[in-house]
Amino acid sequence: MRSKPKILDRRVVAESRLFRVEQIDLEFANGARRTYERVPGSGNDSVMIVPMLDAETVLLIREYGAGSERYELGLPKGVVEPGEDPLEAANRELQEEVGHGARALRVIDRVSLVPGYIAHRSLIVLAQDLYPSRLPGDEPEDIEVIPWRLDALDALLAREDFDEARAIAALFLAQRALAAGD
Amino acid sequence: MRSKPKILDRRVVAESRLFRVEQIDLEFANGARRTYERVPGSGNDSVMIVPMLDAETVLLIREYGAGSERYELGLPKGVVEPGEDPLEAANRELQEEVGHGARALRVIDRVSLVPGYIAHRSLIVLAQDLYPSRLPGDEPEDIEVIPWRLDALDALLAREDFDEARAIAALFLAQRALAAGD
Repeated sequence: MRSKPKILDRRVVAESRLFRVEQIDLEFANGARRTYERVPGSGNDSVMIVPMLDAETVLLIREYGAGSERYELGLPKGVVEPGEDPLEAANRELQEEVGHGARALRVIDRVSLVPGYIAHRSLIVLAQDLYPSRLPGDEPEDIEVIPWRLDALDALLAREDFDEARAIAALFLAQRALAAGD
Repeated sequence: MRSKPKILDRRVVAESRLFRVEQIDLEFANGARRTYERVPGSGNDSVMIVPMLDAETVLLIREYGAGSERYELGLPKGVVEPGEDPLEAANRELQEEVGHGARALRVIDRVSLVPGYIAHRSLIVLAQDLYPSRLPGDEPEDIEVIPWRLDALDALLAREDFDEARAIAALFLAQRALAAGD
């Protein structure tokens, strides 16, 4: 196993309300030096939830993506607040965005989004045994909820408006967890 | 189908060598207004390659992630240069990072990474019929190449150092494409 590169220097080079960009100077084990830019993140994980209405049906949402500038099909998600339990955060987001709570919630994986640049991880949470319950969220408009059968996954993957890598991974991982009879 | 929110204003609020952060003021169809921050990106897609050494074996790489500050198992990837064909970019990255070229390359999906904040998409490229060939890259150190059998995907998913959502999605998508006998 290689020893990690030595961090020679780090400094903040740009900052906005939401983002902080850091430059770091690294020296690798072989002596090579490189300067990288990265977004350190808040240190809090986010959650992405796979809400199963029944054994075969997942509840998708459609909402506007400010990054992609279009309406996207996806899975409910959000940031774990400081001090908040991740499964409680998942159940809160589920009630805010989907109008359901869940009696059974569990983490099935922890993934990174852009590990080369962004130090942030997201927990994939499988939610089962749902019940109707709504909490007020900070969304600018009502979120459309779309039930989708997992046996029609091909049709979903073929859609241009369902393309977030994390959501694709989450559905595959959920399918495996469900198939394993967990 | 809802009409998209109107963009009332957009301005650059932070900028570094690599990142530009934009604030946009949106008015949704129902009149609600919100200000979001996003990273517009260069407009060029990136590629992530699934290189199949044979029908059952994918070639993984291990490299340092400046965002996550650790060595990570993953798939070769890179940015498509302006004017470059995406499949040529994939074959170039493959030769730089893995020391193989591919005679058969095809795009199996186009995914987003963080659609809420980042306007960037990545092409997932399945590479088959490999041959040894190395191109010099800009990597600071030799990249370790690790053959992994797809029937041992569970063991890979269980590893803490293999966690990029895009790579997980890419392997599942490649497995489906291969199973479909394409």
